[in-house]
Amino acid sequence: MLYGSLNIKDGRLFFEGRDLTDLAKKYGTPLYVMSEDKIRENCRSYKSALGSCPCPDSGAVYASKACSFKEIYRIIAEEGLGADVVSTGEIYTAYKAGFPMENAYFQGNNKTDDDIRFAIDHGVGYFVCDNFEEIEALDRIAGEKNIRQKILLRVTPGIDPHTYDEVATGKVDSKFGVAIETGQALEAAKLAISKKNLDLKGFHCHVGSMVFDSDVFIRAAAVMLGFFKDVKDSTGFTATVLDLGGGYGVKYYEGQGEIDIPANIKELSGYVAKKAEELGLPVPALKLEPGRSIVADAGVTLYTVGSVKKITGYKNYVSIDGGMTDNPRYCLYESRYTVMSADKAGEEANLKADLVGRCCESGDIIQPGCMFPKTIGRGDTVAVLTTGAYNYSMASNYNRIGRPAVVMISEGGERIAVKRETLDDLIRLDV
Amino acid sequence: MLYGSLNIKDGRLFFEGRDLTDLAKKYGTPLYVMSEDKIRENCRSYKSALGSCPCPDSGAVYASKACSFKEIYRIIAEEGLGADVVSTGEIYTAYKAGFPMENAYFQGNNKTDDDIRFAIDHGVGYFVCDNFEEIEALDRIAGEKNIRQKILLRVTPGIDPHTYDEVATGKVDSKFGVAIETGQALEAAKLAISKKNLDLKGFHCHVGSMVFDSDVFIRAAAVMLGFFKDVKDSTGFTATVLDLGGGYGVKYYEGQGEIDIPANIKELSGYVAKKAEELGLPVPALKLEPGRSIVADAGVTLYTVGSVKKITGYKNYVSIDGGMTDNPRYCLYESRYTVMSADKAGEEANLKADLVGRCCESGDIIQPGCMFPKTIGRGDTVAVLTTGAYNYSMASNYNRIGRPAVVMISEGGERIAVKRETLDDLIRLDV
Repeated sequence: MLYGSLNIKDGRLFFEGRDLTDLAKKYGTPLYVMSEDKIRENCRSYKSALGSCPCPDSGAVYASKACSFKEIYRIIAEEGLGADVVSTGEIYTAYKAGFPMENAYFQGNNKTDDDIRFAIDHGVGYFVCDNFEEIEALDRIAGEKNIRQKILLRVTPGIDPHTYDEVATGKVDSKFGVAIETGQALEAAKLAISKKNLDLKGFHCHVGSMVFDSDVFIRAAAVMLGFFKDVKDSTGFTATVLDLGGGYGVKYYEGQGEIDIPANIKELSGYVAKKAEELGLPVPALKLEPGRSIVADAGVTLYTVGSVKKITGYKNYVSIDGGMTDNPRYCLYESRYTVMSADKAGEEANLKADLVGRCCESGDIIQPGCMFPKTIGRGDTVAVLTTGAYNYSMASNYNRIGRPAVVMISEGGERIAVKRETLDDLIRLDV
Repeated sequence: MLYGSLNIKDGRLFFEGRDLTDLAKKYGTPLYVMSEDKIRENCRSYKSALGSCPCPDSGAVYASKACSFKEIYRIIAEEGLGADVVSTGEIYTAYKAGFPMENAYFQGNNKTDDDIRFAIDHGVGYFVCDNFEEIEALDRIAGEKNIRQKILLRVTPGIDPHTYDEVATGKVDSKFGVAIETGQALEAAKLAISKKNLDLKGFHCHVGSMVFDSDVFIRAAAVMLGFFKDVKDSTGFTATVLDLGGGYGVKYYEGQGEIDIPANIKELSGYVAKKAEELGLPVPALKLEPGRSIVADAGVTLYTVGSVKKITGYKNYVSIDGGMTDNPRYCLYESRYTVMSADKAGEEANLKADLVGRCCESGDIIQPGCMFPKTIGRGDTVAVLTTGAYNYSMASNYNRIGRPAVVMISEGGERIAVKRETLDDLIRLDV
């Protein structure tokens, strides 16, 4: 089996002890199923690794763009993680869920004046400042509000994380942050330090997503600590927070690379502590921003088959009742997923077919080249695994298709975390 | 100038006589601006070409997935076009807008039993049946409801429209329809004819999108009429409707190909009439399903600049307050757009920069390599042209960003057609 959380009983696929076919019948499809226990387990894994590391006050900040709704922020808050938020929408969701906003980090390459006001008014702990315009605007607005706002400054360390372009963000030519290599990061740091309404705590970078190479974060830390030293030497300012962003990879399919995250954090934090001492710097707090690795393997999406098309001499299609509207990741990145029959999990899977959605668009593919039982047909249940990250959060109403419900399962029970979008929801804003 | 509807006055960009900078300030950004007059003009162009063609009862059916909200269906209804709908969401929107549902065509490769019941209950005129399972389900449900449902059968003629893969749907290995080449289309036609609750009217195909080659539809018509003849010869059934789907290309940028749609319809319908006569068939009604060519050039999206990043020796970025959330087409297909400064349209555009969105994702690019005035900065207004199709309809809440409003302008005035999504809208379904 690919995942420990999955097993087959009486010919049916179970996830975290639940019969997925039963869940599909009970709640309807498409359906996002998420395991609360798995999310908590992933949180604890980070918390434990960062809590016992040699960098004081270290911790994990959940990158909530991976999956953002009220129940997620409640779980994250209970587990003691911070929250990385990227919009007033995420701030408002966290706030309404009762998230302790002093542990929120406001990211993003374009914060409007209205966004800045909203974030300050809702008590966001840290702004991760991205650019010169933001430093100026935030200082001005913080001044108007008579506060001194804690910030980190986002810089680009020039690290290529060997990942795909769409999720590689640490390179010098990124839209995010200010580049160390060009001298602009030092210039931005000086500007931030000079602002009386800003309280610069440290520096942030994010090298990319789906990182499996164990040395990527160490290379980033080396560049970042070098920058800490340069800033100290040229301004006297001592940074106390090193935020290395997110990016640990997640296993989506058999044969894919894997990374032992706690072991990597141990190695990384050891390096940071040693390197800081070598450079004559105080050991900074190490912050990491996991998103995908908190929620991805906690999610499974369930669909019902509508048609099985066998085009003699060409290829086969299994069409389901969702598609790029609830999971656009194959369309966007050709992302790979593991697909299984839920109700016929005990049968041999020897029919090769593309799993395609119901949208009127040829590119609406969930996953090509899947293996299904030969008997698969209309009404059967299909499960797509590891869909907890960037599925619900990226869902659209293309083709005016309502977004699925999210049902949260745990050892203690099950509950709807996000309600299914109805037809009246879809036309609510139409005049 | 690229488009007749655009001009520059006092250094500002006007669209259909409106000052776009004024609209941005008045309604906020991001903002979809759509011209009702342009939509009506595009409808009339199809109506006139098809109304005067030698195929009796011909007409255009608007492919509403291109842009679907209540006001669009009202305009389409007033102009006398049919509506191609692909989900219960589109059916419900059209129905609530007062659209005459007998002129609706229900498309799609996966209609659930619930979808079928809903469509029948709402009086949808035609089902465009896609597959064997649907024929069986529709016949059964129509029988339960004591009606005889009019249908077209979707077939794949095996035409490669020389367009890009995501929008090429007429090839034999498409997820849509049943292939003529493999004999499955004839088999499906026989099944449909045999069903007492189904009233087969004709056949449908859709060769692809962004078609600029004038012979594509003629090649499709040749294959389709050959199929009409085969069906007639082997079953005695005479089809009276030839629906060739959609696909005429739209000009997005200077130097792109163009196609004279009325001239092409004239040539195409002449061919259909002549070919039908040659084959001893009655001349069928010719139906076309334009989507993009009805709404694309009626739309402009307005954004406000948040930051201009000049990475010395690398590249420049102009970050705006929208992104892949309101226009995912560059991310999905590397689609090209024409981008202009709205408030500084009179200045020379000599700063090359990527126009990027505010999402926490490197791939969040609206358009690379745009030209902006050197003075562009925070607070300025940028216009992306030809965004009326597949922008609003494909929008998402990724990063929990609310979707923009749609303001509809016309010679008679301006009005909100779709309200801006609020923060409370975003958390409405969260438990």
